Amino acid sequence: MTQPRFDVLAIGNAIVDVLAPCDDAFLAGEGLDKGAMALIDTDRAEALYAHMGPAREISGGSAANTCAGLAALGSRAAFIGQVAKDQLGDVFAHDIRAAGIHFDVAPREGHPPTARCLILVTPDGQRTMNTFLGASQHLSATAIDADLIASAAVLYLEGYLWDPNDPRAAMQGAIDAARAAGRKVAFTLSDAFLLDRHGDDFRALIDAGRIDVLFANEVELMGLTGEADFEAGVAMLAPKLPVLVVTRSEKGAIAVAGGQRAEVPAEPVAKVVDTTGAGDSFAAGFLHGHVRGASLRDCLTMGAVAAAEVISHYGARPEADLKTLLAQRLG
Amino acid sequence: MTQPRFDVLAIGNAIVDVLAPCDDAFLAGEGLDKGAMALIDTDRAEALYAHMGPAREISGGSAANTCAGLAALGSRAAFIGQVAKDQLGDVFAHDIRAAGIHFDVAPREGHPPTARCLILVTPDGQRTMNTFLGASQHLSATAIDADLIASAAVLYLEGYLWDPNDPRAAMQGAIDAARAAGRKVAFTLSDAFLLDRHGDDFRALIDAGRIDVLFANEVELMGLTGEADFEAGVAMLAPKLPVLVVTRSEKGAIAVAGGQRAEVPAEPVAKVVDTTGAGDSFAAGFLHGHVRGASLRDCLTMGAVAAAEVISHYGARPEADLKTLLAQRLG
Repeated sequence: MTQPRFDVLAIGNAIVDVLAPCDDAFLAGEGLDKGAMALIDTDRAEALYAHMGPAREISGGSAANTCAGLAALGSRAAFIGQVAKDQLGDVFAHDIRAAGIHFDVAPREGHPPTARCLILVTPDGQRTMNTFLGASQHLSATAIDADLIASAAVLYLEGYLWDPNDPRAAMQGAIDAARAAGRKVAFTLSDAFLLDRHGDDFRALIDAGRIDVLFANEVELMGLTGEADFEAGVAMLAPKLPVLVVTRSEKGAIAVAGGQRAEVPAEPVAKVVDTTGAGDSFAAGFLHGHVRGASLRDCLTMGAVAAAEVISHYGARPEADLKTLLAQRLG
Repeated sequence: MTQPRFDVLAIGNAIVDVLAPCDDAFLAGEGLDKGAMALIDTDRAEALYAHMGPAREISGGSAANTCAGLAALGSRAAFIGQVAKDQLGDVFAHDIRAAGIHFDVAPREGHPPTARCLILVTPDGQRTMNTFLGASQHLSATAIDADLIASAAVLYLEGYLWDPNDPRAAMQGAIDAARAAGRKVAFTLSDAFLLDRHGDDFRALIDAGRIDVLFANEVELMGLTGEADFEAGVAMLAPKLPVLVVTRSEKGAIAVAGGQRAEVPAEPVAKVVDTTGAGDSFAAGFLHGHVRGASLRDCLTMGAVAAAEVISHYGARPEADLKTLLAQRLG
């Protein structure tokens, strides 16, 4: 097995976030489920956008954000995702390349346009996401480059990709390619609501031993295992996975690997501004440690530091110097 | 004369800002003049964008930013500017309408695309602007609605509009319409570099008594008057204008009207993050007070409070509740 060219190759939706502040009354008036991600069509996207306040556009997408965190930490990251040939596609492609991430999927001509996520941020920093998948749902199996997959130590996939048909099929092929090349497969459950639609698929992937590192938050853990008790959920799931990572927001995070368990508190944050990308950044920090053979506890701390940085400002990608933050924290 | 429907109608370039941090070495490497605004063509825009780091897109444009400040303060504002029929044009139109500003100029079909300004922000908070005018330079005299001008107490124009040919001609017509309707004309010199190209035009406007309120910064004042001494510049210019306002960055601002002079220090700012829009917001605060008949000193304070808010975060439009900030400051 050759030395991998990349630490992590991530496959995910290629999305530009459209972030605007709002209050709880606005969410209620729009019938939005606070903290969740909803898929929306063109009409709903236009109507919601018309109601939203002034916004800012910042490149997003869950796995793409994780790549940005990895690159900021000094990992070598590559990304596969589909944009359209339009201005927002140019923005996404510029931002991911400017972050030092390998990205060479050609933009798709014609409709639909590049994906965007209308993100409403309440004064408590919670984000409520409304995703128009656009071109992103047309990521096809042909974009899944087996050589690229073989060139990365870890293949990282977001659960969100299970919603659109073409990418879902492409992901299975990507996992095959990674396993055939002897690479690890990391997977994030992304959102508890996905479990209603794709829980059986996710459980099947885990039971078949096709996932090496699983990222879940507390609600997703419960949804996946059917356990109402956190510890019971961990006890059920951990034996099925080489590495299980569960994030618990302000309660910190735990990881279990090979029967060993580690736990860290959340890092302190002066003010939670916008939680968009917290889980994505946590995964970046954890994977950065994981590919370097760091201890389970240090992997968790790297995740917590990266998550704390991204929730302290608007937008889902790091703005501060993560390398320096980590060096200060871990020495 | 009927009661005006709007407090201020502003005419300016319709621009989406593309903001990215950089260091001084990057500016030097790109041959950029720190703190200034340069006009760039398509090739240069593409090359510079490719070199820039990850960015965020936030609606901008000098006079449009002033409208956003006015609306945030509770003034009734309207804006005229030209976007293209494209995604960035949609972003600009959404943001300005969502801020509560009247805007009904139809987007322009075909090339060029909506204007953007590549803004590089150094760690000291200074912004260096590179403007691709795109559709904005095609603002034509037909977009200048005389009825709309007559419906606003103040017509506000940005000096930047003197660069492209069509808008420059349209502005002269707009001033005619405002004066015919008995409305006031406010004007900002925008950038000292404009004085090399259009100083004679600006001086002619002032000498002909066609401007009621002039906004300038210290460097622009020197450039316009040819005086190397600040007080000499004020002494030369003030008698030619009903109201002269000069901003002096961290030294505060002065205003002279009818022989009376007022002066305020800069408002304290915890950390200067990005000075983009400081002058635009200052003008918003001043005009908000001016149309309400506030004292010259209170007008300046309103300007200083609005400017302090906008330099405390990325982007040129207010994010905090300016009404509350002002109420706390002025009681």
